[in-house]
Amino acid sequence: MKTLGIDLGGTRIKFGVVEQGIILQESTCPTPVESGYEAVLEAMTANALDYIKAYQDIEYIGLGSPGLIDTKQGMVRYSNNFGWNDRPVCQDMKKILGKEVRIANDAQCAALGEALYGAGRGMSRMAMLTLGTGVGGGFVKDGKLETDGYGSMAYIFGHASISGRGRLCNCGRHGCLEAYASASAVALRGTEVLKRKMTAHEVFDTARGGDCLAGSVVDEFLEYLGAGAVNIANILRPEVIVIGGGVSGAGDMILPRLNEELRNGVYAYTYAPVQAVCAELGNSAGIVGAANL
Amino acid sequence: MKTLGIDLGGTRIKFGVVEQGIILQESTCPTPVESGYEAVLEAMTANALDYIKAYQDIEYIGLGSPGLIDTKQGMVRYSNNFGWNDRPVCQDMKKILGKEVRIANDAQCAALGEALYGAGRGMSRMAMLTLGTGVGGGFVKDGKLETDGYGSMAYIFGHASISGRGRLCNCGRHGCLEAYASASAVALRGTEVLKRKMTAHEVFDTARGGDCLAGSVVDEFLEYLGAGAVNIANILRPEVIVIGGGVSGAGDMILPRLNEELRNGVYAYTYAPVQAVCAELGNSAGIVGAANL
Repeated sequence: MKTLGIDLGGTRIKFGVVEQGIILQESTCPTPVESGYEAVLEAMTANALDYIKAYQDIEYIGLGSPGLIDTKQGMVRYSNNFGWNDRPVCQDMKKILGKEVRIANDAQCAALGEALYGAGRGMSRMAMLTLGTGVGGGFVKDGKLETDGYGSMAYIFGHASISGRGRLCNCGRHGCLEAYASASAVALRGTEVLKRKMTAHEVFDTARGGDCLAGSVVDEFLEYLGAGAVNIANILRPEVIVIGGGVSGAGDMILPRLNEELRNGVYAYTYAPVQAVCAELGNSAGIVGAANL
Repeated sequence: MKTLGIDLGGTRIKFGVVEQGIILQESTCPTPVESGYEAVLEAMTANALDYIKAYQDIEYIGLGSPGLIDTKQGMVRYSNNFGWNDRPVCQDMKKILGKEVRIANDAQCAALGEALYGAGRGMSRMAMLTLGTGVGGGFVKDGKLETDGYGSMAYIFGHASISGRGRLCNCGRHGCLEAYASASAVALRGTEVLKRKMTAHEVFDTARGGDCLAGSVVDEFLEYLGAGAVNIANILRPEVIVIGGGVSGAGDMILPRLNEELRNGVYAYTYAPVQAVCAELGNSAGIVGAANL
């Protein structure tokens, strides 16, 4: 069975025809964010139609979108990136494409992809943290994406609180994991502490080279990431926590400490251990997951 | 259908014949903790046999036990209270009673009872916090107790971290919700701050009477309970968080502040609100839940 996965990002839209976790063909196009909802819809459906023509056995389309998603109604309830409210994107796409369109939050699609074909293969409970501009989250149980009654309001790990009166988060609240453990947060702290413009990647590289200040930024990041992971572990007790997103390239610096935090911080660890691992599918996870909704 | 619910406590064992959430007959006996596993087993089975004789249509027995429970194997993996390790209690009881015995953690049984017949009736997602000697937790989804692959290692909210380097918990780790929000923790802080031996109940009563020091202990408790509830809400997004245990008698002092913390702290609250409410079944929740495993 072939399906078409679409990963709607803030700058680009990725498309992939997927069969049993393998991407047979893929492409991307820019996301016309400024031109509004209709233009983004047009960009998605025009490309999707090309794939449907080329692969006549595509059964349905799966869409991963940023924001708060109502999976049952097939709607984007709210997207800060796009400025969307209550957009019935599945219905609007189906009208044009004549095929069923399923939707979930983009980070949750990535979690499903990793659970089925990546770092979570064979696990019955897998949580994923995607560390990028924000911190995305997803929880997969027995190969199925767990959602709440609303669709994607649960398992949003980026906004779990790790420090009640802590740093201000983009969501307007204080102490969210996202404010400490996103790639953006690492870059911001690196820039503050090292007094020059830095990316998260540069912070990790500089720390790896022995720089103490960069090392302290990484240490702080790991302490907070550890607190977030311990929290997820104690509440959901997954077998693995998969770390994805741009930061996961620094797995050599992240995993040893993160696993130590889990060993020390997870209640009754020896009875039911929780292991941190790096994502395996990279940028493909979102497409593969969307194609398997 | 009648079932027998047993709530195994540290000081007393409670028994109840339950039909559709109603306890038809109940009784208790002391828990012979010091006499060891065989004596506790004997106390449970002797009473259960009496009920089985009196109610010949009892279909199965449900047992709520403290500790780490393996629901699938029917075992108490570890109980600190009883000093038990890997006790096959369901199998041992079935040998004597000739009926199926199901088991879950005691706080999880209480959560199931409240979800089916108490404060969580009609909700699709309900989390419960039982604030007593410790802080117990349970999560019920669509009327079914959620468990992990091990049985009762997930949803142990008492050991979710709310303060990474905070107070030492009984479990040996730091910053667990249990170290701040249990009735014992309130009593301990009250005793420290007011410089006389106090119970949690007395702390609340003294604060209600206008005492500033007792008030500060209650405020601190509410701040930490709020952090724990917000965390649970952001990860699991239940519709209600039910507060049970001894402390829930002070609902008038707990709920207004707790709901304020939830409104302020829960991500995208308006899209999917989470309400704190008090338990309704009191001490019966455990029996009713066990009888519905």
